[in-house]
Formats: sequence, C-alpha cells, structure tokens
Amino acid sequence: MRDIVVFSGSAHHALASSICSALGVGLSAVDIKRFSNDCLQAQLLANCRQRDVYIVQPLVPPTQEHLMELLLMIDAARGASAAQITAVIPHYAYARSDKKDSSRISLGGRLVADMLATAGVSRVLTMALHAPQVHGFFSVPVDHLTAIGVLADHFRGRDLTDTVVVSPDLGNAKTATQFARLLGLPVAAGSKQRKADDKVVIDAIVGDVSGRRAIVLDDEIATGGSVIELMDRLKEFGCTDAAVACTHGLFSGRAVERLSSHPMISEVVTTDTVPAPDWPELKVRSIADLFAQAIARIHGGESVSSLFDGVDPAHAPPQATLPLG
Amino acid sequence: MRDIVVFSGSAHHALASSICSALGVGLSAVDIKRFSNDCLQAQLLANCRQRDVYIVQPLVPPTQEHLMELLLMIDAARGASAAQITAVIPHYAYARSDKKDSSRISLGGRLVADMLATAGVSRVLTMALHAPQVHGFFSVPVDHLTAIGVLADHFRGRDLTDTVVVSPDLGNAKTATQFARLLGLPVAAGSKQRKADDKVVIDAIVGDVSGRRAIVLDDEIATGGSVIELMDRLKEFGCTDAAVACTHGLFSGRAVERLSSHPMISEVVTTDTVPAPDWPELKVRSIADLFAQAIARIHGGESVSSLFDGVDPAHAPPQATLPLG
Amino acid sequence: MRDIVVFSGSAHHALASSICSALGVGLSAVDIKRFSNDCLQAQLLANCRQRDVYIVQPLVPPTQEHLMELLLMIDAARGASAAQITAVIPHYAYARSDKKDSSRISLGGRLVADMLATAGVSRVLTMALHAPQVHGFFSVPVDHLTAIGVLADHFRGRDLTDTVVVSPDLGNAKTATQFARLLGLPVAAGSKQRKADDKVVIDAIVGDVSGRRAIVLDDEIATGGSVIELMDRLKEFGCTDAAVACTHGLFSGRAVERLSSHPMISEVVTTDTVPAPDWPELKVRSIADLFAQAIARIHGGESVSSLFDGVDPAHAPPQATLPLG
Amino acid sequence: MRDIVVFSGSAHHALASSICSALGVGLSAVDIKRFSNDCLQAQLLANCRQRDVYIVQPLVPPTQEHLMELLLMIDAARGASAAQITAVIPHYAYARSDKKDSSRISLGGRLVADMLATAGVSRVLTMALHAPQVHGFFSVPVDHLTAIGVLADHFRGRDLTDTVVVSPDLGNAKTATQFARLLGLPVAAGSKQRKADDKVVIDAIVGDVSGRRAIVLDDEIATGGSVIELMDRLKEFGCTDAAVACTHGLFSGRAVERLSSHPMISEVVTTDTVPAPDWPELKVRSIADLFAQAIARIHGGESVSSLFDGVDPAHAPPQATLPLG
Amino acid sequence: MRDIVVFSGSAHHALASSICSALGVGLSAVDIKRFSNDCLQAQLLANCRQRDVYIVQPLVPPTQEHLMELLLMIDAARGASAAQITAVIPHYAYARSDKKDSSRISLGGRLVADMLATAGVSRVLTMALHAPQVHGFFSVPVDHLTAIGVLADHFRGRDLTDTVVVSPDLGNAKTATQFARLLGLPVAAGSKQRKADDKVVIDAIVGDVSGRRAIVLDDEIATGGSVIELMDRLKEFGCTDAAVACTHGLFSGRAVERLSSHPMISEVVTTDTVPAPDWPELKVRSIADLFAQAIARIHGGESVSSLFDGVDPAHAPPQATLPLG
Amino acid sequence: MRDIVVFSGSAHHALASSICSALGVGLSAVDIKRFSNDCLQAQLLANCRQRDVYIVQPLVPPTQEHLMELLLMIDAARGASAAQITAVIPHYAYARSDKKDSSRISLGGRLVADMLATAGVSRVLTMALHAPQVHGFFSVPVDHLTAIGVLADHFRGRDLTDTVVVSPDLGNAKTATQFARLLGLPVAAGSKQRKADDKVVIDAIVGDVSGRRAIVLDDEIATGGSVIELMDRLKEFGCTDAAVACTHGLFSGRAVERLSSHPMISEVVTTDTVPAPDWPELKVRSIADLFAQAIARIHGGESVSSLFDGVDPAHAPPQATLPLG
Repeated sequence: MRDIVVFSGSAHHALASSICSALGVGLSAVDIKRFSNDCLQAQLLANCRQRDVYIVQPLVPPTQEHLMELLLMIDAARGASAAQITAVIPHYAYARSDKKDSSRISLGGRLVADMLATAGVSRVLTMALHAPQVHGFFSVPVDHLTAIGVLADHFRGRDLTDTVVVSPDLGNAKTATQFARLLGLPVAAGSKQRKADDKVVIDAIVGDVSGRRAIVLDDEIATGGSVIELMDRLKEFGCTDAAVACTHGLFSGRAVERLSSHPMISEVVTTDTVPAPDWPELKVRSIADLFAQAIARIHGGESVSSLFDGVDPAHAPPQATLPLG
Repeated sequence: MRDIVVFSGSAHHALASSICSALGVGLSAVDIKRFSNDCLQAQLLANCRQRDVYIVQPLVPPTQEHLMELLLMIDAARGASAAQITAVIPHYAYARSDKKDSSRISLGGRLVADMLATAGVSRVLTMALHAPQVHGFFSVPVDHLTAIGVLADHFRGRDLTDTVVVSPDLGNAKTATQFARLLGLPVAAGSKQRKADDKVVIDAIVGDVSGRRAIVLDDEIATGGSVIELMDRLKEFGCTDAAVACTHGLFSGRAVERLSSHPMISEVVTTDTVPAPDWPELKVRSIADLFAQAIARIHGGESVSSLFDGVDPAHAPPQATLPLG
Repeated sequence: MRDIVVFSGSAHHALASSICSALGVGLSAVDIKRFSNDCLQAQLLANCRQRDVYIVQPLVPPTQEHLMELLLMIDAARGASAAQITAVIPHYAYARSDKKDSSRISLGGRLVADMLATAGVSRVLTMALHAPQVHGFFSVPVDHLTAIGVLADHFRGRDLTDTVVVSPDLGNAKTATQFARLLGLPVAAGSKQRKADDKVVIDAIVGDVSGRRAIVLDDEIATGGSVIELMDRLKEFGCTDAAVACTHGLFSGRAVERLSSHPMISEVVTTDTVPAPDWPELKVRSIADLFAQAIARIHGGESVSSLFDGVDPAHAPPQATLPLG
Repeated sequence: MRDIVVFSGSAHHALASSICSALGVGLSAVDIKRFSNDCLQAQLLANCRQRDVYIVQPLVPPTQEHLMELLLMIDAARGASAAQITAVIPHYAYARSDKKDSSRISLGGRLVADMLATAGVSRVLTMALHAPQVHGFFSVPVDHLTAIGVLADHFRGRDLTDTVVVSPDLGNAKTATQFARLLGLPVAAGSKQRKADDKVVIDAIVGDVSGRRAIVLDDEIATGGSVIELMDRLKEFGCTDAAVACTHGLFSGRAVERLSSHPMISEVVTTDTVPAPDWPELKVRSIADLFAQAIARIHGGESVSSLFDGVDPAHAPPQATLPLG
Repeated sequence: MRDIVVFSGSAHHALASSICSALGVGLSAVDIKRFSNDCLQAQLLANCRQRDVYIVQPLVPPTQEHLMELLLMIDAARGASAAQITAVIPHYAYARSDKKDSSRISLGGRLVADMLATAGVSRVLTMALHAPQVHGFFSVPVDHLTAIGVLADHFRGRDLTDTVVVSPDLGNAKTATQFARLLGLPVAAGSKQRKADDKVVIDAIVGDVSGRRAIVLDDEIATGGSVIELMDRLKEFGCTDAAVACTHGLFSGRAVERLSSHPMISEVVTTDTVPAPDWPELKVRSIADLFAQAIARIHGGESVSSLFDGVDPAHAPPQATLPLG
Repeated sequence: MRDIVVFSGSAHHALASSICSALGVGLSAVDIKRFSNDCLQAQLLANCRQRDVYIVQPLVPPTQEHLMELLLMIDAARGASAAQITAVIPHYAYARSDKKDSSRISLGGRLVADMLATAGVSRVLTMALHAPQVHGFFSVPVDHLTAIGVLADHFRGRDLTDTVVVSPDLGNAKTATQFARLLGLPVAAGSKQRKADDKVVIDAIVGDVSGRRAIVLDDEIATGGSVIELMDRLKEFGCTDAAVACTHGLFSGRAVERLSSHPMISEVVTTDTVPAPDWPELKVRSIADLFAQAIARIHGGESVSSLFDGVDPAHAPPQATLPLG
C-alpha cells in the first residue's frame, strides 16, 4: 500500500495536526515563502513520489491567500510525482458563489473547482457544502462529509424534554429534520419574507415552539445576523431559550459579542472545520476523527459512505449514527 | 454579419417553427435517420459554414432519443465548420439530476452538460432550470430565460381582487414572489413536511388564503400529484378556487385527467417549452417570441439580460416587464 | 491486487452473468431509475473505490437508452473513485457510423467514443468492430477481440469434405479467409455490384462453390437481406446448402422468419454478444469465456493479444487457436 | 472580411504558388531555420493577426521533416493570433497507419491528427484520404476533396469506344465505379488473393476486359508494384493496353523505370498533390484550382460540398461534375 | 468591427483610465464584492456579448487578491459571451517563479498561466517578463511589450556626454545593451559573485565608468537592495553620479527612503505599469499610450511587433523607436 | 510492484543497453518500420499492460526522425495499457527553442513538450536542460538530472594546483560555479559582447586565469565555435592550457577537427547522453548509472532529488556529491 503523506497550509494547522494524530501519521512540513513582490511559493518538505498526498486547507480568511497556497501546494505535489492528491477542504467557502443571480457575474464556486483541477488535484474531501448542487461543479470525485452526527452527539445524554430543533430557514430545513431525527425531537423553522430586494426578514415560526427549549441548527455562522433575528422571533413565539449549533463557525465581525450577550442563547456549539475565535465559552466538537476515518478509507479503498447509515442521503450528506473516536 | 441558420430535432418542431417565424428566418431541414440496429444519424440540409447555428430541442420524452439527436446535430454542425453552435433547450430535463443524494449515483445534469460540450456546442439557451446552480454545470456560456413575464401577462387585465399567488413549496417560493410582484398580489405557500424517507406531504399553508382565489405557480408539472395535494390543502384553508400556472407543462401519466376533473381548479395555463398534450382546455402561452428575441440579441451582440428589468435577479432568472410580441 | 467489480446495465444481463461465472466473481447490482420526465439515473450498489470496475453493456436496441445507461454508470463509477473503469461493449453498434459519406452528417462512431471518454471511461473492451479503423476513434486504450475462433470451433470435428467458406462481400473477405484457414477450407465470396445510388446487389460468386456445401460468415446480421440474396446466388452457382455464421446476431425485423424458412440454409450459428431472439433452432456459442479471460488478463497485467496466435492480425482482430473454456 | 494569408512549407512550393495564383493572393514568405543540433524553427514573415491563415504542406518525403515544419508553422501562426488556421495537406500520408493490425503498434493516422490539433490547427483541407474512416481521426473539421473529376476530365473528348475502367482491388472499387460513371464507361477490377501472410497477388480480373483498352485508377502509386502486377493479369485476360491514373503520384524507388518501360502502359496521368518526379512523359493535371476554390469557399462561408454534385458521396469524396478553372 | 470594452480590477485604476483615454473609449465599470467569508465576486457592468473585452490588472500587492479579481472578471466575461478576452497584465509578478530550483517546489509562473487559461482568457498582453522563457508558459497567445523606448525617451535631448548605461547584472545585460544603443551610449555592468548559498554580492564593474555619469537600467526594483549595492561599487570605480531607470517600480519596504537618500543617485525614473508610491520626486513615464496602441492593433488585426523596429528582438521584446503619443 | 519495461528507439541504443545493465533488466525490443511513403510505425515487442514503461531516446540528429519515433512508441505504449510511460530524453534538444526572440516564430521547446503529452507520456526524465525555465514548458512531471557530479569526478584525484574553472559565458556561469565548488577551485568566465545583430564575440575574461590551467565547462558543444574563441581569449589572458568538459557532446560539423587540433586544449571530456563521434581521444563518462538510479527510484517511489546533496538547487539541477556506480 502506498504511504500516506499529509501536508497543511497555513489556514488551520491545528486541525491538520489533529487529523494526523487520529491517523497515526506525522504531519509533513511545508515551506510557504512570500517574495518581496507578494507572490507566494510552496515547497513540500517530504517525499511525495508515488504516494497518496493529502493537503489540509479550509478556505478561511484571508481566503485568497489560503486558496493560492492550496493551489501551489497541489502544483508542487503533482510536479513531485504524487500518485494521488486529495485536497482536504473542510470549509469550501466559495460554495456560496453558486449561481448567476445577476447579469455578468462570476461563478466562483465553479471557477475555483476548475482551478483546483488545473493545479492537478485528484479528489476533494469536504464537509457541508452550502448547496448540494455544488458537488456537480467539480470534475474530480468529491467525498462530502456531514457534521450533524458529531453535533447531535453533543446533545445526547441530556434531558431533552420539551426541546425542539429549529432551522432558521424553512426552505433549507432538511438537514435540521435529519438532525432532529437523530435526537428524537420535533422540528420547527423560521419563515423568511423578502421585504425589499435587499432585505430578508424572518417574520414567523412554523411549528410549535411555545414553552419549549430550542436547538437552532445552521450550516455556517458568519456575522450571526440571521441567528439574532431568529432569536427575537423565537422569543415572540414563546420559546424559553435556545442552544445554537453550526458546522462552520466563522464568527466574523461582531458575531462573538452579539451571540454571547443575547439573553435567549444558552450555549453555542460548533466544529473545528475552521479555526475557533477567541471565545472561551464556545463549545467546539472536533471533526478531525471523522476526516481521519475518511482518509483512512479513501487510502484503503473502503467505502466512505458506509461511515454513515440510517439517514436518507437525499436530504443531506450522510451522517454517522455513532459518535466517532 | 454572419447568417443565422436554425435547425430543429424531432422533439418540438412546432416551437422551432414559431421561433423562426418570429425571427423572420426559415427553418432549415434536418434528416434524422434510424439504422436497422437502432443507431441514429443526423444530416443538416443547409450550409453551416461560418454561420451562427441554432438547434432547437427540448429534452422531452423519449428523452434519450432526443438527447442523442441533439448531440448528433451539434456534431454535424461542428464538422461542417459552423462559426457558433447554440443549443436551444427550452426544457433541460436533466437539471433535476443535480445532486449526489445517494452513494455512487450518477449526476446526469453535469454529465449531459459535459456531453454537449464534447459534441461541440458553443452556448446553451434555456429556460427555468430546476435549480439555479445547474447553470454552473456548464463549461460554455448559458443564457437563462424566464417565463414568468409571459405567464403574468396571461392574468393581466383581469379582476384580481382578493387573489393571492401560491407557491407549492415554501422553500422555493422566490419565483412565486417575483411573479406576485408583477401582478401586485400577495403571496402564500404550502409548507411541506416529510412524513417518512420517501413521503413528503403538504400539511399547511403559510399566508392568508381564506376566502381568496389562488393563482398557483410551479416550474414544472409532470404527473400533477403535488398540485392536487396543494388543492386539497387550499380548500381546507378556505381558498375558493385556483388557477394553475407552470412553465414546463409535461402533464405525463394521468395528469390531464386529474387536473381537469379537480373541482378547485378553474384553469391551467402553461407555455410551449414542451409539446402540449391533447387537452383543448389547456391555455398555452407561447415563449417563442422570447426565444426569438434572445436569439436575435445573441446574434447581434446585444445584451440578453436587458430583455428583462425590474426584477431582482438573485431570486430567479430575470423576467420581461412587458409582454413580448 | 485491486478487486474486480462487475456491473451490468439492462442491455444484456445474461451475458454479464456468464462472464462473472467464468471469472468467479459475483455480478454487482445496479439500480437504474427512470424519472417521470423520462430521464435516467444509475446507482451502483457495490463499493468501487480504488477498484477495477467493468461495466457490461452491448449497444443493442433500444440503443439510445442503453448508451445513456452506460454513460451514467461510468459517471457514477468515476464519481465513486474507481481506480479504472472498463466499458465492456461486446457490440459497439455505432461503429457503422464511421465515415462522412454525405455533406454535414454526424459521425456517431467518433462522437460516442468521445462521449465515453467524457463520462470517464479508462478502457474499452469490445469485439468485431465493423471496420478496424474505428479503433482509432477512441482516445482510450481499446482491447479488440474476435469471435472467429469460437465460431470455427462450432464446425470442428464435423465432416467438412467439399465445404467452402463464403464471404458475402469480396471487399471484406479477409476475416472469412482467416476463418477458412482455421478449418483448413477454401474460400469464396460474393461480388457486389452497385445498380443505383441506393441499390447494391450480389451478382456473382468468385471462387468455386459448385457441388459444395457452404459456410457463410458475416460480422453482423440485422434484417438478413444480404444473406438471403447471397443464398440465391449460391444456389444459381450450384452450391448445395449453406450454414450461416455471424458474430453479432441481431436478427431484427423479419430476419428470423426469412432465414428459418430459406431452403438453402441448413443452420444458423451466432454468439451471445447481443441477446438472442426467440428462435429455438438458432445455435448460440458463448463468447463469455473469452471476455472473462480478457478481463482476467487486463486485471492481472497480462497480454490480451497472447490469447490469440497463428493469425495475421493485419486482417482481423486476432483469434484464439484453441476453443476457450 | 478577414484577409487570407497563405504560407508554404518546403514540401511543395510549386503547388502553393499555383493555389495562390488561382486565388489571386500572394504567397507569404516563411523562414525555416535548421539549428546545428538539427532542430527546426519556423518564422512566418507576414502578419497573421485576426487573419485566415492557410498553410500548404503535403506529407511527402522526408515526411518527418515536413510534418515538423507544418507543426511549427501552425504553432507560430497560433502564437501570432491568427483567427483561423487551416492546414492544407493535399496528401495526408499518415492516413495509411489507420488500424491496429498487430499488438502494441502505433496508430500514426490518429496520433498525427491529434498533434495537429495540439499545435493549434482549426481545420484540415485534404484530398483522397486512404480510407474514409480516417476523417474520424480528426477532432477539428476536415474538408475532404476528390481528384476524380480532374482525372476524368483528362480523358474527356477522346474516343473511349471499347474502353473499360479497371480498379486494382475489387474491395476498393467504389471510387473507380464513380470515375467510370463520369465517363460513361463500364468497370472491372482485379481480384486479390492472399498467398501467405505477407504476400498478396492479383490472380483474376472480375469484369470483361478482353479486347478492350483499360483506364486503371488508383489513389496512390508509390513503387508501382501493384500496377505492374495488374498489367500482367490484364494482358492475360486479353486487354490490349492501359492508361494509368492516380491522385497521389509518389513514384518512389524504381517506379518511373518500371512503369515507363511496361509495354501495356500507354500513358500515366496523375495530379500535383505531391511534387512530380523527373519524368517528362508523365501527364500531370493540377488540383490547384480545386484547392483554391475550396479555400475561397471556406473563407467566404460558402458550402464546399456544393463544389461537387451528382455523385453518391457514400462511395467517395464528392467529385466536381465540371472541370475546374 | 466588434466593439472594444475595457474593464479594470482594483489593482491600478489610474492606468486603465489612461489607456482608455488614449484609446478614446470609456472605462466600463466593474463591481467587486467581498462577502463576509472573504470570498470575492466580480460583476461586469457593461455588455460583453460578441465584444473584444480587455481587462487591465497588474499583479501588484496584495497580489493574491488582485489575481483572484482578475480570474473572476475573466470568468464573468466568458460567461457573458465575450468574443475575445485579453488580460492586460502590465506587470506579471509570478514570472519570477519560473524554475524548479529546489525539490518539490511550486512553479507559480506556469500555474498562474494555466489558471488564466482555465478562467477563459484568449490572450495576454504584458510587458517586460522577468525571463523571456516565461512566454512559453502560456498556452494562449501573448503580446509582450517593452518599455525601453519610453525610458530612453526620458533621456533624449539631454547632454549625455560622458554617460554610460550600467546593468546591475552582467548576465542579464542584453536589455541594457539595447537601451544604450537607442541613446548612442556605451554600456557597463556589475559582476555578481555568489558568496554563500544565500548571498550574492556585486563585486566588480565590467566596463569603464571612471569619471562618467551612469544611467542604471533594471527591469524591476522592489526593495532596492541591488541598486544600492551597485551604487557603492560604482562609486568605488570612480563613477560620479547615477540616474536609475526601471520598468516596474514597486519600491516596496524601505526602497523610497534608501533610494532618495543615496548621494550617488541623481534621479529615479520608472513607468506606470504599477501604481506609483508616495514619492513626489519620482519621475514616472507612462506606458499607457503603448498599451493603447497595442490594444488598437490587436483589435484592428494589425501587427503589434511592427510597433517596434530597429532592435534585434533576440535580446529583448522589441522597442519603439519613436516616442509614442 | 509493477514490472519495469525499457524500450529504446534508434537514437542511442548503446545508452539504453547500459541503463538496462545497471538496472538489471533486459532491454525490450521495438520494431520501427518505415513505409514506402516514408511514414514510420513503431511496434513494441514486449507486454506493457499495467507496467512502468521507460522509453530511452535523446533528441539527436536526425532529430525529427527520432522525435517521431519517440512519439509513436509512446502512442503504442499508451494503446497497450501501460500503467505509466516515462520518456527518458537525456538530451532534449528542442530546449534551445525557448523564447519568442522574433515576431511570429515557433516555440519548439513548448510545442514538443505538448506533443509528448498528447502522445500520452506520464513523465519526462532528462538531463541539463538548456535553460531551467524549460522545465515549466511541460504539463507532466519532469525529473531533471545533472552531470556535473560525473564530470567533476573525472578530475578528482588529480593535481589541481593553479587550476581554474572557466565558463564561456558570464551570464550563465552558475553551473560552472557549482562545478568549481565540487572541486574546490576558483571560477572565471568569458564576457560576451554583441558586435552586431548576428555577431557575438568573447572579448574579455573576468577572473584571474594568468599562469593557470583551465577547466572549461559548457552544457553542450555542437560546432565548437564558442569554445575555440574562448581558447583564443584564454591564451591572450595568459592561461597555459585547458581541459574542456561538457554534458552533451554533439561535436557536429568540423568540431572534432577544430577541437583536437587546438594547441591550448589538453583533453575533452563529455558524457554519453548522446552517441559519441568517431574520436578515440575523447573521454566519455557514462551517465547510465545515474539514469538507472533515477529510474529505480521513480519505480520504487523514492525521492530522486535525494540522489543529490550539498548543492544549492537554485543555480542548477542538483548534482551527486559522490560518484555513482
């Protein structure tokens, strides 16, 4: 069997280390150099020849820098005769640029997928793409993981009486429905109304939340604006308090301040697909084991989808029934 | 300026003729031959050299036959030194295969897009893709039209007092919202609930429909099951009657019988992106003029998006404010 | 060594099963789904990751359906990280579309070869291409088998005194010559004359057939028109009776009726590259063992051409000297 | 309209000049440089930007030198922003490498077609490909001309009483049949018999040649061995004398000596697709006008196939009914 | 003739405006949007259909941001059916990553060239690539301009008695030689010596500089370290003072301070391929007219190389003999 | 582990044999056939299926013949299902066509790299490319070896008192500097001056050579003109005598005569990347062991760069510190 070699760009070294620990392999070194004209250069400091190379790099800010690092590392691995190159991109941020919603706009989600192929990637391993159609933007195989098993595990064993799972957007409530089923809970959702071309508000809650405790599930939280607005509606509809869970916890701008000070929010839980902000109260569940298992299966020629079962994959990427690790 | 040459496969000759009439060009002949081993061959019977070639073919049943005809016509046009080849696909049926919702399934929406590129297409002109992300499956430019202006025009000038636009699915209510705005009407939507893995039901109506008349808007109606179910809910919630409007009116299986006999349904209106069934009461509004204008603008190097205005393109392909033709 | 996984589309399940039996591997399941808009979707129900995947599908009627199934299965296997994907196409029907014999016609033989590559095929395994040049239409490696060893074996051990091998077309008599040499027989051929642009007749027999028994060899029999015409000429030239042998026995239209009732024809023998018609008297020799051996050699990195010897490969794909199995 | 620029490699400057004269454009200069390590470099000495560039180069000996020149000229034109680049290859010699008739052999006909595409060619203009399937080896459009109209014109106006057209090979008699029809003559053909794996002899003449004068038609004559053998058979079967006509008159090795001294041969006529040998008695009919007309039509966006009519293109590239020029 | 549309990314709006003024066309607007997750999106605010689109963007710091903007603008133009897309990259900074000078390093110069092609660029227009071989990294045509005519023009008309042109590196003295010839001056050069693996010093001056005034010519000045070192040597060898000229004046880090305070330096002249630093004494000669002329010629199908004459192009990109504008 | 199969074209059979001996594998046979129309065909006479195929062919005169042989052998190996195909090109002669130093010239170094990829090569193994940037012309991985360790070994153990390494061109003196460091010697270089557009002369020697013995190092010697000129300058500057060393010893034209008769030249040493001329006094050091080790490492998945150490790879391909074999 060909050896595994794992490299990390500078986006999230801690996650790469955790994945390597779980895999039982060392993290190989990379030298990223910045020239005086601001151009980057990557040098891989371990032999790649005929090896399965995995490069860990979520697309987090500064996004363009991290994307270019990733492309240069792939290019270096290809030139070094790697047998297979898997880009491990726990957060594929450009997935949000997934449609032509104006005349003559770029389609970043497809363009970046094509650029990865141009650089020489053989496969992409990612988690919770913003829309499932983005899978189809890639010309190389994509292994698409979900964190809802890991997040559900956070709530298992607690007293969940009178608890309801709430999706911020009724239109994207499918993942929340799966998550609710894992915990044996009912589901509710915010109903968004477009007030003006550039203004969307949550004006109702579909489903019964009165007198109940909520677990709000979202795929990504950036500035946290949507979540705050949902909290106000939940309060109006009689909800008592809410835990907030999300896969990609970017918490940019004033998100930490807004979320930590909101009276309805009892706790916030996320994963380590992206580096955590400086927020001691934040609960971070690691998806490193999940990625390590996926890499081991890819390398060993075993099914990745069998990592998950009991979930209708038509609604979301499959989830693990059992907590990993 | 290079001449326009328009060909039609066997999927929808009537539409191709209408487009040609609106353009003021003749429809050029194609000879589609079937060999004794069931293989197809296409021969284009007009000179294509250095010309702008447009091939009209919606992907309607028998879908594989029509797809192969289209690919062979594109191949023939390329071999005949066409300057540009635009596939005019008013209904791109494979758009529904847009995600990997199971392990090891095909992604037909992307594969067919790639096959069109392999055959040699330069551009695709289509209408109302099932999901806006499907645009990103194509490596060639796509001009994506909408029929909501044409459908709204059907209702203009009527007494629309106490009328409400209803979307069958709250999650995809954006196009209905645009449509409602064109008519100055409020909007409501069905709320879908997943009962089991393979069973989705509409269990509620969000928005006020009581004592009102509805205009239900959907992108495609095949067997009509969703619409019938929506009618039952609308009745329960006090709606008095409903007109049904859709872009792609396939009306397959028992759809005509079910829709024409439902007591809530006052009328059904669709467009001619696909051939009409044998149903005299069906109102068919033609999108031929819209396609003709788009072709004229493509050929003349004018903006296609300026065909439409006043609509937020983030929610749907842009619509024409004024009825065409 | 990577495991072999074999799938079959719906074109010829029996052949796929026979090949799997000969290989000693199970046939893995595929779920082909048809949507209400007539689009197809393929799901492979066995793990493909890092495996050698073989997909068996001759292009028999309904040809477009079977071709699309094949393309979707290849796409699914590629997306599932198969190590290598071999399309096993015992009858590549589009090989007959091999030249531009009119202005602006499609070249289906090349287009379908390119589409297979676009879908992600790594190799094609086929038998008796209509013209040897069609090999050059593929950008991926092609392993090209012959059935003449199997067909010759059918006649071995019989009394072949006063027997002559007859090719319907002197212009394509090379395979017949090889076949004759395997049996130690002389060869004769029909001489075709073009009467009008769309009318070709066999007007003479070159070689001595008077008082002899014939074995007519053709690559494919569809409607059987050519064979019937040849029989009439053979009778005129004094031939006493004829056995008919072909690789691809499609027997479409009225072929069974015409061939079974012709007084000159003593027997008809074919192979199972395509499903057999309902015709109990037809002798079918299986090429499943030959395909199984080829697959085993491809998988094991052994020479496929060494399956065959003693034949000038300049005239036909190489044949097996010894009966297989 | 974009200007035409015509360049010639060193293979056949005279033909390029004739084509330019017929087109009424000057032949632009090329500087082909050979370095001391035997590498070649091409410099185009006229502006190519946004122009239709035509590069004339038949693949005649030294074939590899001329092929490389052609590839380098195409590369230079592409780098110089030519709008379209047409390789005018009157004799595509690699067409004879059109099948895998042995294990592990190269397929030069396809490889060279792919190399031309890699260098950047937009279209190929050629004449009398050895097999019509070779057309399908190219991924770019091919315009495929025939010389039989030009050759037939050579014999028009003569007393053709008791004359018969003879094809050396019954298997490839289709072009001869067309040629015969242009002159209103009957057709006969040699019947080839394979004596051993590497030995083919003409052992019979199909059709009546006794007491008649023959016009032998072949696509290419290299060493002339086949023609000489055919002459011997024609004599045995009572033919009185023969004119010999071919499209590509290479006359390599001892061909001139053998053909000019054979008592049966009354005259030899060929075209200028390749440079003529030093043989004053050879009749050379120019195809320069035909190529010039094709170029003019390609440039002007007119149909090339309409240059020809009245011929079934299923049997050969179409011919001109009227002599050109 | 197709219309010209010019867009500018955010790297150097002033240059794009100057080029547009010289061309006599307006600069079309672009909307570059940054999402909360730091991803970029480009929207072109003018019709591109069937037009010649030029996108001006030198790769200056922040280089990755500007590169991604450029790629997104190209992607948007392609999706909007532009006829041709020319990336106008006056400073292609990644050209310095042009060789594999360590094991397993990235080759950014080639990768970025491939990424531009992936995004859909048709042509690149650039100036003074760091090494002439970088031209060969591009698969699309490159028009490569030089600024030495513009820089020489700065010194024309002055008293150049006892002046010598000095190249910092004898190994790259060819451009300086051309520049000197334009001014009728002699040339000298620094001789670099490698002291250690990471230390190169200028330890001698080849050519006579004693008692002379120098004009130092370099292609790019970043931190200015090399120039300062050269000044020290020039002083040692008796040079009286020096003017400094370069094409790409980045002046990063402490360059302005170091250069402006050096006693040997009489003046610094550069061009506007990159934005100027805040340094009032810097002389900036515009290359906008040169780019405008090149664009006009590209658009008009005229030769770009004929913009220049009298220079051996083997040594540098050709220069304009006459000052432009 | 997959088996190694090594083939040789006709360019340098002796080197291929030496490499095979060092590897301990047999050299597999190839049949190169030349048709009467001068076209070539390659047949590989050993099984390639799933094997690592290495094809040895330096691009030496007749260069076009050898290049075409190489391309045809690669094509044959690909068609025969080779797992990996490495072109072993010890002398990549087209590397000298590495820049567009005139208008509208071909860029052979890039074109040939693209042609190799088109034919199906997976990797290139080469030595001493003329410019390090040529590495970037290839889209496949390149393993780039150096001969300076082998050449330095030739001089080790001698008395090197008062010896200096001399590079003919100061601009390309980096490799000479490395070579000098391996031997612990100082370095000097010729300074080239351009007299006219087509005339370059060495007019000075930088560094002290007076009273010293020189070792002149060049990458390639063709006609030897530069070396002879350098000798004259060395003599003028007081050098006593010189050994000449080069990697690629083509010695074309009158090189042997000129070099062997020059009074300053004490010996000439080269390697066997190209066949040796008939010159008994020439010292040839074999690089076969170095290539064999590289092949063994490529095949075994070991680092090739670790073959070399102690050298700054920024200046040249890495060298072996220890003599190989």
